[in-house]
Amino acid sequence: MNRKMVFHICGQMMLIEAALLLLPLITSVIYRESCFFSILATIGVALILSAALISVKPDNTVIYSREGFCITALTWVFYSAVGALPFVFSGEIPSYADAFFETVSGFTTTGASILTDIESMSRGLLMWRSFTHWVGGMGILVMVMAVLPMTTDRSIHIMRAEMPGPIVGKLVPRVRQTAKILYIIYIALTLLQIFLLAVGGMPLYDSMVHTFGTAGTGGFGIKSDSIASYSPYLQWVITVFMFIFGINFNLYYLALIKRFKSVFSSEELWTYVAIVFISIFAVALNISPIYGSLSETLRMSAFQVMSIMSTTGYATADFNLWPQFSRTVLLLLMFIGACAGSTAGGLKISRVIILFKSAKRELKKMIHPRSVSAVRFEGKSLDQQTLSGIGVYLSFYIAIILAVLLLISFEPFDFETKFSSVIACFNNVGPGLGAVGPTGSYAGYTAFSKVILSVSMLLGRLEIYPIIFLLSPSVWKKKS
Amino acid sequence: MNRKMVFHICGQMMLIEAALLLLPLITSVIYRESCFFSILATIGVALILSAALISVKPDNTVIYSREGFCITALTWVFYSAVGALPFVFSGEIPSYADAFFETVSGFTTTGASILTDIESMSRGLLMWRSFTHWVGGMGILVMVMAVLPMTTDRSIHIMRAEMPGPIVGKLVPRVRQTAKILYIIYIALTLLQIFLLAVGGMPLYDSMVHTFGTAGTGGFGIKSDSIASYSPYLQWVITVFMFIFGINFNLYYLALIKRFKSVFSSEELWTYVAIVFISIFAVALNISPIYGSLSETLRMSAFQVMSIMSTTGYATADFNLWPQFSRTVLLLLMFIGACAGSTAGGLKISRVIILFKSAKRELKKMIHPRSVSAVRFEGKSLDQQTLSGIGVYLSFYIAIILAVLLLISFEPFDFETKFSSVIACFNNVGPGLGAVGPTGSYAGYTAFSKVILSVSMLLGRLEIYPIIFLLSPSVWKKKS
Repeated sequence: MNRKMVFHICGQMMLIEAALLLLPLITSVIYRESCFFSILATIGVALILSAALISVKPDNTVIYSREGFCITALTWVFYSAVGALPFVFSGEIPSYADAFFETVSGFTTTGASILTDIESMSRGLLMWRSFTHWVGGMGILVMVMAVLPMTTDRSIHIMRAEMPGPIVGKLVPRVRQTAKILYIIYIALTLLQIFLLAVGGMPLYDSMVHTFGTAGTGGFGIKSDSIASYSPYLQWVITVFMFIFGINFNLYYLALIKRFKSVFSSEELWTYVAIVFISIFAVALNISPIYGSLSETLRMSAFQVMSIMSTTGYATADFNLWPQFSRTVLLLLMFIGACAGSTAGGLKISRVIILFKSAKRELKKMIHPRSVSAVRFEGKSLDQQTLSGIGVYLSFYIAIILAVLLLISFEPFDFETKFSSVIACFNNVGPGLGAVGPTGSYAGYTAFSKVILSVSMLLGRLEIYPIIFLLSPSVWKKKS
Repeated sequence: MNRKMVFHICGQMMLIEAALLLLPLITSVIYRESCFFSILATIGVALILSAALISVKPDNTVIYSREGFCITALTWVFYSAVGALPFVFSGEIPSYADAFFETVSGFTTTGASILTDIESMSRGLLMWRSFTHWVGGMGILVMVMAVLPMTTDRSIHIMRAEMPGPIVGKLVPRVRQTAKILYIIYIALTLLQIFLLAVGGMPLYDSMVHTFGTAGTGGFGIKSDSIASYSPYLQWVITVFMFIFGINFNLYYLALIKRFKSVFSSEELWTYVAIVFISIFAVALNISPIYGSLSETLRMSAFQVMSIMSTTGYATADFNLWPQFSRTVLLLLMFIGACAGSTAGGLKISRVIILFKSAKRELKKMIHPRSVSAVRFEGKSLDQQTLSGIGVYLSFYIAIILAVLLLISFEPFDFETKFSSVIACFNNVGPGLGAVGPTGSYAGYTAFSKVILSVSMLLGRLEIYPIIFLLSPSVWKKKS
């Protein structure tokens, strides 16, 4: 492998993290908070690490898919490791394991938190915490590609490694152009949401923080009751934007260039819409005895369903107190997630559709062994390799869930808490059921389990393979 | 579909169930029990149903795979529906839903029970209950094929539908001969276990009942503490035979015809042995503080691990009281199950191996996109169709677990109980964790959930597809 090139590019990435830290730095200046110094120190660390890595001069700039996977995985680990420092330096999260968990949870847009008293944190660090969601949502490397001229023209390998979904395509022939378009749409939607929240009476700081959490489908808030104390209008705005950020961004691009026909013929979009509405309806029916009016019932159901399905994790109600049926529906939605190519986590709807269609074909083949039929998705027939690739992905997905469950099994929580912790972290949802529900936190886990759960968040966000390659010694060999 | 032929063959099958009921009938005569009359009445019902079905004269005797699936599924449903009658007629299980659950649990070798006071049951009916395990273990239709000359020479379609595992082959060119060989090995091992148990001081009746439960990897016992009150020798005999009945029966045939080299090169066998020993060791380490001596610790660990892994479900300890790590290990073993071609349930080791190898190949392909490598299993390379078939099987497997979990989610049990109920029923294990643990029962579920869990036991035993075809109206159409 071209190890030098891997480190070199990671160095470029760290330069950008130093720049990203300017937003919380400015926030801390505005609010005159002492966390200013810990953020400044972290910028120093990021710059030194960046300089050290960039100084590794590669013999050639050629990279292949293995380098793409390793650059992606390593960048995410570096970003989290360095991004955790302000919390430790300031003493607001004294344990490094806790701070690392919180930062991984931020970048991976999981939103699982070890904080038990959010409202005592400084505003500068809460801004950084939520900003990591926004950065991780559309992808760290995709962002860097849009901003920096890369030293390699093979950056498609990096993009493939970071973008979620079974099939990654470029919108336009050039990768850099694609990255730019994605970020322009992302920024436009973000600004629109901040505006709509601010118009509804939410303070600008709160609007920014909550928009970052929504856009990245992360879910970090700044109040211990999440979104519950905001007005119904603000809750509906967030509900709608959780829906919007769960849609494949390619569709927004297609809408921009006026190819509406392609947008409205998207199978994944319609399946997403159908699952959303059926779930909201089913849960609303189930929880209607708890709430007073129809409008409150619908708002509660819609918010919680969208929050879980988009893997955001905001809450306006403690769904731990809801009937078991609704809780099970929410647990199933955690598995599915939203659309590929969005900022959401989970298995992704397109994978579920393709698995479902393969299953149908398999049944047909059993009855008519000689029949030949292709699996078609979004108007294209998929080759055998994509199909078996999705089957293999499912195997990894299940194996990782079971392995993580086994590794944290010694923890003294009940089974529902542990099982939903694994599902909520791996699918980047955030809150689970039981002790890690919307009103609870992950603080009770040991440092060991926090690291395990952090790794599973990275596995979920990067769709498994980059992290496996990062941990494989054979991939790192010089020749192969 | 050749519907007439489906019904005609099902009629032949019912004739055999009438004959099978003679064993409990004789038992009830020996012990002079009043359940004699209810068993006799059931034989009458079976004969009438059989006559009615056989009277459907098919226009031709040709069957294809769809008929094979439907014959298999329908026979299992008929056997369970009629097999439940003695319990209802005698009043020992008054509710038909309960009796149906118990009988499906018997034939599918699940061993999940709704009985809360086993020791009050008559010996005749307990014999029938355990005998269903033995019949279902090696397969109802395989047995009938070995005994009756079939009206069709296409019986391979039936065998394929009933035999578990990803690849079904015939031992010898003729299906009937294969069925006979399998049953001869099965009967020989059964007699050996009865002998070894009786020699160890277990009464003959108990020896027969427990051997039926072991051979079918079912797990129905006759005491409320399962096997706990028997001597260490008897517990070890059962442990060893649970291991034996979890091995692919093809290997016994290969051993019989002295092809030892093929036996010892079986990947599935060695993986099975490795998982068994590692699990026993890990659980023993974890539970050693609970038990006094090393020998007791090992016996407890070995018995429970073998019981769960072979999906039998006997118990000598209440593993609900074991530490969480051991309980999670047991839960994972429920998923894996034992070897294909054995009487055990679960996903089957061969499938897990093939999934693992496909995953390894997928990783390799990502790094070297142009590399061509086949997945090899038991010395043969598998075609793409077998591989994608296993991926699809896994999708169905997960989807059914989630769907059943959703359907029974309204029950007032905790999540661990419900989750393990689904896993234990679908994988044909029997006891789960929590309220359905070794000392509990499924009696607390509503009739609706009992039927849902019964269907999931059938889905698990017949490996999903036959039941799906049975429930598809399009398959039943006259022409297609």
